[in-house]
Order: sequence, then structure tokens, then C-alpha cells
Amino acid sequence: MTGERTIGVGLIGTGFMGKCHALAWNAVAPTLATGLRPRLVHLAEADNTLARQRAGEFGFARATGGWRDVVSDPEVDVVSITAPNPLHAEMALAAFSAGKHVWCEKPMATSRADARAMREAARASGRVAALGYNYIQNPAIREMERAIRAGAIGRVNHVRLEMDEDFMADEDAPFAFKNGAASGYGALDDFAVHPLSLVWRLVGPVEAVVADQTRPYPSREGRAVETHEIASALLRLRGGASGTLGVNRAAWGRKGRIALQIFGSRGTIGFDQERMNEFQIFQRDGEARLAGFRTVLAGPVHEPYGRFVPAPGHSLGFNDLKVIEAGEVLAAIEGREARIVDFETGLAIEETIHAMARSHAEGRWIGVGEEN
Amino acid sequence: MTGERTIGVGLIGTGFMGKCHALAWNAVAPTLATGLRPRLVHLAEADNTLARQRAGEFGFARATGGWRDVVSDPEVDVVSITAPNPLHAEMALAAFSAGKHVWCEKPMATSRADARAMREAARASGRVAALGYNYIQNPAIREMERAIRAGAIGRVNHVRLEMDEDFMADEDAPFAFKNGAASGYGALDDFAVHPLSLVWRLVGPVEAVVADQTRPYPSREGRAVETHEIASALLRLRGGASGTLGVNRAAWGRKGRIALQIFGSRGTIGFDQERMNEFQIFQRDGEARLAGFRTVLAGPVHEPYGRFVPAPGHSLGFNDLKVIEAGEVLAAIEGREARIVDFETGLAIEETIHAMARSHAEGRWIGVGEEN
Amino acid sequence: MTGERTIGVGLIGTGFMGKCHALAWNAVAPTLATGLRPRLVHLAEADNTLARQRAGEFGFARATGGWRDVVSDPEVDVVSITAPNPLHAEMALAAFSAGKHVWCEKPMATSRADARAMREAARASGRVAALGYNYIQNPAIREMERAIRAGAIGRVNHVRLEMDEDFMADEDAPFAFKNGAASGYGALDDFAVHPLSLVWRLVGPVEAVVADQTRPYPSREGRAVETHEIASALLRLRGGASGTLGVNRAAWGRKGRIALQIFGSRGTIGFDQERMNEFQIFQRDGEARLAGFRTVLAGPVHEPYGRFVPAPGHSLGFNDLKVIEAGEVLAAIEGREARIVDFETGLAIEETIHAMARSHAEGRWIGVGEEN
Amino acid sequence: MTGERTIGVGLIGTGFMGKCHALAWNAVAPTLATGLRPRLVHLAEADNTLARQRAGEFGFARATGGWRDVVSDPEVDVVSITAPNPLHAEMALAAFSAGKHVWCEKPMATSRADARAMREAARASGRVAALGYNYIQNPAIREMERAIRAGAIGRVNHVRLEMDEDFMADEDAPFAFKNGAASGYGALDDFAVHPLSLVWRLVGPVEAVVADQTRPYPSREGRAVETHEIASALLRLRGGASGTLGVNRAAWGRKGRIALQIFGSRGTIGFDQERMNEFQIFQRDGEARLAGFRTVLAGPVHEPYGRFVPAPGHSLGFNDLKVIEAGEVLAAIEGREARIVDFETGLAIEETIHAMARSHAEGRWIGVGEEN
Repeated sequence: MTGERTIGVGLIGTGFMGKCHALAWNAVAPTLATGLRPRLVHLAEADNTLARQRAGEFGFARATGGWRDVVSDPEVDVVSITAPNPLHAEMALAAFSAGKHVWCEKPMATSRADARAMREAARASGRVAALGYNYIQNPAIREMERAIRAGAIGRVNHVRLEMDEDFMADEDAPFAFKNGAASGYGALDDFAVHPLSLVWRLVGPVEAVVADQTRPYPSREGRAVETHEIASALLRLRGGASGTLGVNRAAWGRKGRIALQIFGSRGTIGFDQERMNEFQIFQRDGEARLAGFRTVLAGPVHEPYGRFVPAPGHSLGFNDLKVIEAGEVLAAIEGREARIVDFETGLAIEETIHAMARSHAEGRWIGVGEEN
Repeated sequence: MTGERTIGVGLIGTGFMGKCHALAWNAVAPTLATGLRPRLVHLAEADNTLARQRAGEFGFARATGGWRDVVSDPEVDVVSITAPNPLHAEMALAAFSAGKHVWCEKPMATSRADARAMREAARASGRVAALGYNYIQNPAIREMERAIRAGAIGRVNHVRLEMDEDFMADEDAPFAFKNGAASGYGALDDFAVHPLSLVWRLVGPVEAVVADQTRPYPSREGRAVETHEIASALLRLRGGASGTLGVNRAAWGRKGRIALQIFGSRGTIGFDQERMNEFQIFQRDGEARLAGFRTVLAGPVHEPYGRFVPAPGHSLGFNDLKVIEAGEVLAAIEGREARIVDFETGLAIEETIHAMARSHAEGRWIGVGEEN
Repeated sequence: MTGERTIGVGLIGTGFMGKCHALAWNAVAPTLATGLRPRLVHLAEADNTLARQRAGEFGFARATGGWRDVVSDPEVDVVSITAPNPLHAEMALAAFSAGKHVWCEKPMATSRADARAMREAARASGRVAALGYNYIQNPAIREMERAIRAGAIGRVNHVRLEMDEDFMADEDAPFAFKNGAASGYGALDDFAVHPLSLVWRLVGPVEAVVADQTRPYPSREGRAVETHEIASALLRLRGGASGTLGVNRAAWGRKGRIALQIFGSRGTIGFDQERMNEFQIFQRDGEARLAGFRTVLAGPVHEPYGRFVPAPGHSLGFNDLKVIEAGEVLAAIEGREARIVDFETGLAIEETIHAMARSHAEGRWIGVGEEN
Repeated sequence: MTGERTIGVGLIGTGFMGKCHALAWNAVAPTLATGLRPRLVHLAEADNTLARQRAGEFGFARATGGWRDVVSDPEVDVVSITAPNPLHAEMALAAFSAGKHVWCEKPMATSRADARAMREAARASGRVAALGYNYIQNPAIREMERAIRAGAIGRVNHVRLEMDEDFMADEDAPFAFKNGAASGYGALDDFAVHPLSLVWRLVGPVEAVVADQTRPYPSREGRAVETHEIASALLRLRGGASGTLGVNRAAWGRKGRIALQIFGSRGTIGFDQERMNEFQIFQRDGEARLAGFRTVLAGPVHEPYGRFVPAPGHSLGFNDLKVIEAGEVLAAIEGREARIVDFETGLAIEETIHAMARSHAEGRWIGVGEEN
């Protein structure tokens, strides 16, 4: 089609999140009818062979074993960074230097210093700097946010947040990279940032925490486990609400649970990512004899569900959230209002888990952002 | 990428199902890494302008207001037919005549004669003739099928099938096309074929039926409603199982319910499409004190879930089922074993609802395929 | 306490239902503060020793191995009949002859002739004649009835009824009394009358049926099974609603499922006895973005829940339903309006299953009450 | 019946819990066939008239407006104390002095000093001293305990405990007794002790806590609210497990939620009191393709469910738990092993909430039992 505006896309990494970005870049224009149409220009993987294979599958024009080729490619306008977390900072800084927009998977970095450097580079560049917090894109979550802002449950006074999976639950599994300190804190980095990104949108930022971390299996294969699979925290949010947070990556039977309970002066809202196409709401108004939690199924009334399926109750999937996120990244690039977690907010979310880790070490309440 | 094998795709229709096909043709190669890569060649809509707009959004190279242009396009190898049901037969026959493979939305046709003609044309052409019964592609459904065949619930002796939505539930809505006899029977065509396609895969074909149909709202805007929004049937299946079927497109609050209960000599399986990423299974074996229905969340152990997301419990969506179906169509085109509902089976499924309609008229049991 | 009015109670049978009656007679005054206080006078069991033991446990003053002693006891005013079904008719007739009120477990009898004789005797006696359809006493069911009558879901146009347990599901179990024709039809007598009693209250009587019955296990220990563990029917109700009924006492994993779906012109109601303290309701009114099925937990707003527990959501149990039923029997005896299934209605419910059995034999629709 | 052993019962208070005790004393012998049969001797209420009325309803022989009459009645062997919490200590001490067994509602007292005095008096008396923690009596909870001890979920490493209702959720409600400091802490006394009693049985005692309390509505009718409707805590349990606790009596829509999640090295167990007849269990063993949480319905295999209903899945109710508790009190009186929370354990549970209150005041971890 003539007259179509396009944008050149680079992708670094083709694992879980890399493929998810690739699918989103393929699907975003047909689904959301974005004015800006992605051209899949350049893809990087650890070696040339794998890179070429993935480029073929994903539909990228060029492939490389060296990620700097992507960053320096003049046809690339926006770079998806999905490489391992310790590499994020270097890649993002290089991309900003080359004048690219950046869409980086969370968490930003494995150190506060790196994350701050990334935030500074983003600020200086003037480019779009988005983080991969796709759960906030769920139409169900968006409707919860809209409803809360419209007063559907009154003033929020309490939240309970959980995120649990079981990929670290097997006590007989060998020692893995994620058991070492180099991978970060453990469940805090891996999980806690997700419900925190949600509560940030739905209620607001966390101001102070007291936290605890534990290791269900202190050693594997004779090596001491350095990370904590389980973490819990008490929260105080801006605006006065209190809360709890529990995250557990050794929770047998949980596969993708991100459970929210949000209590307000006129109602309560609940959600669980394992059933991502629905949420529960109780509102105090109405006939007492017929009062109860409603299970609301996502549908076209909840934007942008209808861009995917015109019939309600037919379900979006996990990958669809990334498509919506890609649409928001494109909106941001076009200068329109966009629903993304930028590097400012992303840093604030990560400061929250640093505060939790410090609280665990010191056994006291810690203000988020409080300097060590 | 050089050396890649491609296949030319034509698409007729860009509504609910047309967009769904378009998304699937875009996503199938990146997701499933099919050897054959679709090229989006030619798209038809009711008029040229809309056709061009959609071609731009969906990524098709050419657009037309005349569907025969797609069928006769020499670069097109396979045609997606998603136009209104009364047009299916003419389009499919033309496509087979032009030597194309056909992927047609269900139901095949609004008359038995047309459906039979389609079946004959498909046979004569030797081409792939697939129908859009995408619910059978769900990894959860596939696992249920595998489990049943592996004896997980013993010999199946009874089934209960339901499909309900509420788009015809509003008694105050105006008279619509779907209220007229030209649209078919009503809930039987619209809905019943879906659970029947599922039970066909999971248990087997239906041999005899007795059925009833009702109209919750006999008239709209002073015009008599000719279709039946509600239909129910008793079933006898090949192999001896009995069953019930209930379909209702005036079922307030149901949005995409397709509920199955399958009872066997050693267990029971349950499923509801509104929570399409899970199913329930009870097996008689095991400790009685801890016995109960298990809720199984779909994950990478259930093929081809893992091609979409490597983590369990993260949810596929409705559109992902079409991607899987596209992959099966490609497999069939390549001559590999494919999980599709072909025109033979599709005709048999449609014969079942014709038998139901006749049973309703005559008040007695009718054998499926019994001639009028 | 002086001045208290009391009523003498006789009990025949101390099995599942006998104990349930005994508990109800003990609990009804403390719970419901009935004006009339039961005195536990005389209990009959198959032999004197067991009778004495049960009388001690249940708090009855006298015990006998001969049920006629209870019926003829001048201090007994009301007789609970919980003996095996084939004995109901003789016992009830004797009790009416002796001028007693009768509270008899369902079904009335194993033959239509006996049931009719019981109905005639009840009419002639002028005494209270109540059947043990305790599920209708559930505060959740009562609220559903109230709501339906108040128009909460508009005009009812369709129902789906299910009752399933698994006590006959084991194909390896020995031949039992319930496998022989002397026990009745099978799932029809055992189960179908329960959902029919509920739909009778909630919507109205069934006028015509077409039904099917099947045997999952045709023989046990080499003997032919004569009953049908599975039965299904299509229903037409007075007032124009249609429906389906499925009952299965070989349904692995179901323990006490009585599932109702009631569809109306303005909403839908659902219930499952396995979670007897809640029901679901969808109402078309209200904000579309937040519409969904509400799960209503029973509480003091739903009479007479509050007589048991003053806090909502704390759960009544199965035995509490019998206490409420005992209270209704007392109300009837005192001449007040009472919510019981009397012998007139009970006979009509049983005629429905006879019509189903005949429909199965003849393969056609049968009007309820139509003579053979 | 001659030769029956009986025990004289006194009851102080006839509100929510008083009626619940009365129903239990009436039902315990018929239900559980206890060797010892309660005689309902003497009942006390705030005034003579109400006392007489309740005695008539509940079946007590004597009534009084002065509770000391009950305690000093020589025919009374065991006293049910269900008066307001501030009166428990005086009543229990008087009862022990008079040589009675005591069955007292929780919490023991509104001050630690009183609770300790009660514990000392119980010790000195040698009498049975039981607290009303009836949730531990639930057959579902008992089975969870049995399963955990049998290793069904391996070594417990984490727990999440919640208890929520909404009777304090209405911000427009007037200032009530429970809003004043004289009533205690708030949600901690009212609620937290319940899940703590459960985790005590299921896992073990809590050793250290850090806690937070908040007031959703700081004032009512212009008066400052002194209690906290919401409390949260992090827990460290003996044996190394960590945990969280959240309690909220202003949680709109929650009616009787007591939710437990117990994570172990080989599985997970979940429970919610709002559906008190079921629990969920995931066990790592078994076929991965069919793995998931099982919903186990309580039945006769879970003692003593079968004493109430011989059929599984038919549901016990809240009041039935008190009947089981009454049976345990009788067992303790007869010198048999009994499942009760005695005054030793009850005091330890209450020390946990005192530690939480102190932690809230001091902003640090507090050891349970640590002296102020």
C-alpha cells in the first residue's frame, strides 16, 4: 500500500520475551490498525546461525550474532531489548546514543546504579523509553483502573498483592543461575515488580515497606542457594492505603498467579492473572438480598479488547498483552499519550524492591527511595 | 531469507472471522515456525475502498471489491472464505475450480444441497478443504482428547454439551437478519455445530437425536421471529454413549460458554470455553480422602501451547486457536497429517443439526443422515 | 417451662433420613423458636435392640421393633416415615387411619397405584401430609424463588436441570438392590424428583417430556442390571418454558451436585447444591462495563438463615434444611401457611418421572399425567 | 433410657454464640452418639424475662438473670461462657472455683493479665478449660491437618492467612462499641486469632511478627475511631516457615472469608471458610499433563462428617462445627484425648496478637511472648 508510514524495528534476543516481542511487532498493525506500520529490519541473537533461523521464523530482514549491529543499523528506529537482565544497561545506553527508541524488558538492570544510568540516558536522549510491564495492558486491568478512578469502589484503603509460580519449587532440581546472587534477589526481582507495576497504575506508588525473605531450599547439589524464592512485605502507599505483598516462585501448583485484592470504602475488586480475562467486583450499592461479587468477563466494552475479538467472553491471551504494549510504544513514538511504564516509573518500581531487600536485612521499615 | 518456501494467501471477507484469519496468516510462521511461510497476496471486501483499507492494515499486497479476483489470482494458493454463510458454496466451488486450497468458515452452507455440493467439489478437486472449527485446536481440548484416548476416564458413557451467549437475549432489540428464516434455524446453526465438532473429536459422531426448539421472544417490532434462539436435544452417540445438548443465544450473562461434561467408567472431564485455558478432570484412582476434580491449567506440556508461551498458566487467547488452525491447514497442504475438520466431517456435523430440526418438527427420534 | 405447647413425635426408621429427621426434631424448637415444641415419644427400628440404642442416642422416650406401635401410640401426633420406599404406602395409610400427621420421605411409593392411594388417604384424613423434599427449604433456593417471582430475571423461558453423584459409578462394584427393577427406574426415582421439586417451586410444573435412559454397566457379577443409572429428558413447562434434565448416579467425582440454570427475559440464575450456600445471578440492568454473574452468599437477609446464624456467609448445612422443613411441618400442623411438598404435589412430581420412563419406552413425547 | 450417663450444662449468654452453644448441647448426643448425654440445666441472660424465654426455646430447665446462679448450681457440671469478652475472666474464675468445667468463647479476655489469670485458674482447678475455636473442628480442616502430617505437601515452608468480613465496612454507620478502645485492638482480637488457631493446628506456633494496623475510617459521627479495622503482619513460625497475615473487618463483599494457603516442599493446600466444605490440594506427584489443584469435597471419609451425613458432598454448616466442638469438650471431660484449644494454647494465640499490636507501635519485629 502506498503512503503508509513505517518504522524500522530491531530485536535483541529471541527467547521467551524476544519471541513475544517479535509476535507483537508482527501483529500490532493488523490488530490495532496503527498508523505506523513496523518493518522488521534486524534481529540479534547470541550467534549468527541461530539469529538467521529466528529471523526467518519471525520475518526479520537481517540477522546478526552481534547486538551492536542492530543498534547501529540506520534503518532501525526502535530497539526491543530482551537479552538477559545484566546486559540491559549497556544495550539501552548504546541504543539511546544511536538515537533509537528503546523497549526494554523488565527489570531494567541488576544494580541500582545501572538502572539509574539508564533512566539518565533516557532523559537525555528524548527518545521513548518503555519497559515491558505488559500485565498493565490487559483490558480487564484497564477496566479495573477506570472503575477505581470513577469511584466504583470508593476510596482505596487496602491492597493485597500476590504473585506465585512453581518453577523453583522442585527441591531436587539442580543448582541454577537463578539460585546465585548474580541473578538478583530472587522472587523480588522476578516477581514483585509485576504486582507493583499493577498497583502503581491502579492505586499509586508505595512509600514504605517492611519485608522478609526466605529460602525454602537452602542448598542445591551441595551449593548454598543465594537467592530467596519467597518474599513478603507490608506496604504503605501514597494516599494512606496499607497493603501486603507475597511473592513465591516455589509455590507448587501456581503457574501464573498474580492475585490482586483492592479494598475501598464502597467496594472491593479482585483479579487473578491465571484467569486473565475476568475480574471480580463487589459494590455496596444495590439490593442487599442479591448482593455479591460479580465476575466480569472482558469484552469489547473494555478497550482495546474489541480490536482483537468483537465478541465478549472469548478471551485474549498473554501474547495479546504484548501486542497492546507494542501499540502503546508506537503511540509514544508518535507523540500521543501512551500507557507505558517509562524509565522514570520503572526505576521507582525497582527502588521499591531495593527497599524491601534492605528492610529484610535491617528488620525495620524502609522508605522507598531512601538512600543506603 | 533465501530458500524459504512460501504459499500465496487470498482472503475473502474481513469481518470478525476475516480479521481472525488475517491475524492467523500473519502469526503462523513466527509462532509455529512452519516450513511454509504465507505471503499475503490478495484480499477481497464488499467494495474497493474498504478492501484497500483492510489490505493496508492486514498486510495484503493487493485488494479488490470483487471476490472472484482473489480466486483467479495465479499467485494465490489457498483461499480463506469468511464471507456470509449463503455465499460460501459459490466461493468454495469457484476456488476448487481454480485449483486452490480452501479454508472456509463454518457452517459450510445454509442448505444441505449446497453443503453436499461443496463436499463433492472438494473430493473432486483433491485440494485441502478445511472448515473453521477452531475450538478443537485449543491445547486444553487436545489434551482432553489425548487423555480420553489414553483411557484416563475409561469408557465414555455420557456427555452433556452446552453453548450459550446472550447476543439475542435483549427482548427489546429490533428485528435482525438472524431473526429471519433465511439465516437458518437459529441456535442450531450458530452454536450447536461447535460443541458437536468438539464431541466428534473427543468421543465420536452422533447417530440419533430427538430435539426441541423454542423462541423466547416470538416477535420483534411486530414481525414474527422465524428462528429459534434456544434448542435442546438428546443424543445417542456411536459406541453407545448417550448425551444432552443445550444451546441458547438468548442466555443473559453467558458470553462465550461452551461447556462440556464427559462421563466415563473411570472418571469425568469438564471444560468451559469462557475459561478456555483450563479443564477439570476427576479420576477414580488415588487416595479417596484427597480425591476431587483437578483444575488443569494449559501449559507447554500441552502441544502446541509452548509455541506461544514457554511458561504454563499464562493463557492463550481465542485468536491463538486460529493460528494453530492455520498451522494445521499448512500441514495438510504439505501433505502431512493434520488436525482439521474437512468437508466430509463438516457435512456430517451439519447433518446432525438437520436431523435435530426435523426431530423438532416431527416429535420423534431421527437418525443422523436419515433422508427426508 | 410451664404453659408450653408440645406435640408428640414418632419416628420410623433411623438410617440416613431417619437420623436426619431425629436431628431436626431435636433442633427445630431451639433454632426456629417454634411455638409448638416436639416431644420425642416413640421410635421404631427393624429390631428392638437397635431401636433402643437409637432411642437413647436420639432422645426418644420409647423404642420398638414394630412400627405399628409408633402409629398406634396415643401420645404420638405426627409420624416421620423414613423406612425403605416400598413400605411407605402401608405406613402412611396406617398413620392417617390412626389420625396422625405424616412426614414421609420421598419418593412416596414405588408404584403409581400406591402413591395415588397415599394421596387419597391424605385427602380423606384432613391431616398434614408432607414429603421430604428438603432442598426447597434452602434459604438460597427460597431467595431465588422470591427473586424470580419479583421479576429479577424477567419471564423464565428456559431451564437446565442436573443431578449427579457417583455412588453407582464403580463398574467393579457388586450387584446391589438398587440395580434391580424392584428398586424402581434408577436415576429417575432416586434423583430426578429432586430437581423437579425445585423447578416446581421456582418456575412451575412440567407438562410434557421426551426422555432417554441408559445403563453405563449393563451387568454386575454376571447379573443383568435392570435399572438405569443415567437418564435425560427434554421438558416443556406450563407457561411455555422449555428445558433439559440430566441425572446420573454414575458420575465420577460428583458428590451432591444439583445444578440449576434458569434463563429469563431479563437475567439468569444458577445454583449448585455442592455449594449450597450460594447462587449466581445475572441481571441485564446496570453498567455494561461492570456486568457479570454475581455470587450471592446466603445470609440473614435470606429467611430463615438468620435463625441459625446471625452472620452472613457462615454456611448452613444439609441437616439444617431438614430443621427448616420440620418447622414448616409444624406450621402446617398449626394451620399456618407452610412451604411443604404435600401429597398432591408430590404425586404430580412422581407422575413426571413415570411419563419419562414411558417416553423412553415409546420414543415419543408424553404428557405428564397422561394415562397408560 | 435407663443407665445413661448425663452431664449438667449451664449456659451464660444467649446471643450469637450462646445460641450456637445451646444448639450444640442439644445436638451433640443424637449426632455423635456421645456416651455422656448433656442435660440442659440452667441458663443465664441479662434479665429474668429474656432468660426464661430463651430457656423455653433452647430447652433449659431453669433460667436466671444472674449468671452466678448458673455457676453455683450444683447440678451444673460444665459452664458455657458466651457473655461479652470483658466478663469472661470473672465468670471463668468463678466457675473454676465452683469446680465446674469451662467452655469459653474466644478471645479469653480483653487484657493479657486477665487471660493469664484465667490460664492459672484453669491449671489450678484441674478442670477442662476449652476455648471456642470451632473452625479447627471442620472435617475439611482436620483432613488438611492429617494430610500435612502425613507428608502430603512435604515440609511446610510458607503460609498466607486471611480473614475478612464487611460488618465494619460502611463508612456511614454510626460509632459503635467496637470502634472504642475498650473493645480491644480491632481486627486483631476479632479475627486474627481465628486463622492463628488454624495455623497453630496445621503448621505450628508463630514465634515472631512484624505488623501494621490501619483505620479506613478515622472517625464516625465526629468521634475518633480507636480501633483498627485492618491489620497485616509478617510471620515467622517455629520450624522455619514464614508467612503473612491479613485481617480486615471493613472488606466489602467478604462475609466469612478465612483463606489459608499453605505451601510445602511437595505441594500446596488452600482453603476458604466461605466454602467450608471443600479444600484445594496440589501434589507434585503424578502425570504432569494432568496435574492441577484438586477440589476435595468433605465427606464421610473425613471424620466426623459421617456422623452428620452419610453421603459426601452434602455439606455441613457452621453450627455443626460447634456440635463437634461440644463432642470434644465431652471427650476431654471423660478424660479422653480431645481436639480442643485449651487455655494454655489459647493464651499463646492471644500473645501473638499482643505482639502484633506492639510491633505496630514500635515498628519492628517482636518475639511472641516477649515481655513489655
